[in-house]
Amino acid sequence: MLQPSFEAVLKRIQPVDADWIAQAEERQLHLTKPPGSLGRLEEIANRCAAIQRTLSPTVRSPRILIFAADHGVCEEGVSPYPQAVTAQMVANFLKGGAAINALARVTGIELQVVDVGLAQQIQETPELISRRIEDGTRNFCHEAAMSRDQAVAAIEVGIELAELAIRNDCHLLGIGEMGIGNTTVASAMTAAMTGLPAGRVVGRGTGADEACLARKVKAVEQALERHGSSVQHPLDLVARLGGFEIAAMCGVCLAAAAHHCPVVADGFISTVAAALAVTLHRGVKDCLFAAHRSTEPGQGPLLEFIGQRPLLDLEMRLGEGTGAALAIAVIRAAVAAFTEMATFESAGVSKARSENFLPCNFL
Amino acid sequence: MLQPSFEAVLKRIQPVDADWIAQAEERQLHLTKPPGSLGRLEEIANRCAAIQRTLSPTVRSPRILIFAADHGVCEEGVSPYPQAVTAQMVANFLKGGAAINALARVTGIELQVVDVGLAQQIQETPELISRRIEDGTRNFCHEAAMSRDQAVAAIEVGIELAELAIRNDCHLLGIGEMGIGNTTVASAMTAAMTGLPAGRVVGRGTGADEACLARKVKAVEQALERHGSSVQHPLDLVARLGGFEIAAMCGVCLAAAAHHCPVVADGFISTVAAALAVTLHRGVKDCLFAAHRSTEPGQGPLLEFIGQRPLLDLEMRLGEGTGAALAIAVIRAAVAAFTEMATFESAGVSKARSENFLPCNFL
Repeated sequence: MLQPSFEAVLKRIQPVDADWIAQAEERQLHLTKPPGSLGRLEEIANRCAAIQRTLSPTVRSPRILIFAADHGVCEEGVSPYPQAVTAQMVANFLKGGAAINALARVTGIELQVVDVGLAQQIQETPELISRRIEDGTRNFCHEAAMSRDQAVAAIEVGIELAELAIRNDCHLLGIGEMGIGNTTVASAMTAAMTGLPAGRVVGRGTGADEACLARKVKAVEQALERHGSSVQHPLDLVARLGGFEIAAMCGVCLAAAAHHCPVVADGFISTVAAALAVTLHRGVKDCLFAAHRSTEPGQGPLLEFIGQRPLLDLEMRLGEGTGAALAIAVIRAAVAAFTEMATFESAGVSKARSENFLPCNFL
Repeated sequence: MLQPSFEAVLKRIQPVDADWIAQAEERQLHLTKPPGSLGRLEEIANRCAAIQRTLSPTVRSPRILIFAADHGVCEEGVSPYPQAVTAQMVANFLKGGAAINALARVTGIELQVVDVGLAQQIQETPELISRRIEDGTRNFCHEAAMSRDQAVAAIEVGIELAELAIRNDCHLLGIGEMGIGNTTVASAMTAAMTGLPAGRVVGRGTGADEACLARKVKAVEQALERHGSSVQHPLDLVARLGGFEIAAMCGVCLAAAAHHCPVVADGFISTVAAALAVTLHRGVKDCLFAAHRSTEPGQGPLLEFIGQRPLLDLEMRLGEGTGAALAIAVIRAAVAAFTEMATFESAGVSKARSENFLPCNFL
């Protein structure tokens, strides 16, 4: 049942070799700064070195893949925005008017926008990558969101585009999404993965009021009741409760891990996709970076599950890859420091003295 | 006693007009995103708009000014590094090998390095701006670190270079520093400003061990005992307990506020300089951004005093302006989103519905 590229990618994934972390940590000690003083920038660079298996890591040509899709659960009134906004925002991405466009331009990150299942086909442009699985998912309150074959097909869209990026010299991938209703979908998947009740993992998304929030919780509860006992495999999870964009982002994480490329998850929805990838292969963990702490309550337990502390906490909750764009700027800086800094030896800078040093004016 | 440019700058500073914040907030509501979904990026852009008094703020040509100076208190053995490292690191800055060089290059920020009082004059290069007040400060455990005239002169170095930057089209300033021993100096100033005991505001700096930490606490206690009662004015504070680089960074903050330019304080030492500027004129508050939460314990109370929450928390403690460089990248992104995003109207994107909306598929 599994498609070749999905299987092939899963087989390629290996955990990162801890020896590379140790080698990178050793190199950090020679750079002209007090040991550890760059804090998490050091941890970031060390991980990039380990993922890429080199002491000269690079994150050149970073690219964010934005996957857009619609969700049948919108029928339940789970978003303050009409479903048409998914396609309208895709058009906005293509015209360069969305937040992610501004952030990608200013940080020098390439964007690709992928229709992986909008409810209605929109006008084709050369910039839009069309990989439509279906006209949106079905309403998971009443039936499975998609078939298992469709889930694999959507994952393979992500794999295809990640592999294309990597072949085109991309050395750091980011994932982002657009899909009205997808915080509800992400919350259902989170509840199923963590065992937490719906009330704990449902948030306000784009700005739900009390009534809308109650409908979100109810939709997630209905979905869990209907599908919970049928989820035996991660592919069931995404097929019954997921979205095409979430499956595709999961595919990007899998391909990134298979090809030794660091990958940055954006906010809540992206973290769900990353967690799904980790359930498919735990080796994916090592290649992930969590961009930022979203204001959505479901993200926290998932971050723990994927073993990542977010790099940023700017109270963002937009999606689109906006948090990933900022995190990529931080990762790029971390790698630049690691690869471009002089060593104490090369710069002729004195190192710290050991414990029994003399006051400095006597040296 | 006050020098003309110091007085002139203080007279020019005005608090930011809250009406600009309100106008910027109103504009945010029209941009194609759920209201508030860019979190602190919105707050950042709104403040930049208010500081610059325009709904088209810009942070083009950002520049970080790094001030280097030495400290007489090094005699007390307060740093694991020999004092010579201050000058060695300045040479490293000029050759482009320090962390701040890598970070400034990758984020497109201009750097200027200013010798405002190294213990020994280093070889002049065209890149080094020499504004030496003296060969380092005196040991504040035994006498005032500098005279009040020297404090004003150092502040005026900062004013001069900030004004030069602003004349050269810089629209966002950052401050950074280098000075072996200056966490001890910053801690003494923090204790004097906040009334907190030395033990609460002294940290490990570049990596002090237990014995070194104890010497730092003792030096701060001695300084407070000797000078505490003589500090009647912010200029006494910096003259008796300060450093030339701290005074110069304070000058940058004053000039930035006077000229409606946002200014980014880096870590602990820079926050002390920013707080000193706020004690000289509370209007400076409105123009400040705190780059990051340092691991130094003295920074927290000062952040409260200057009314700023740091943008980043990456466990950094290097100085040099490294945190400011990352924060400038975030501020630039925030302003890009604010100025470049399409509106709901221009992009043809539907807005959120009011409370009594219908499920989206019925629209």
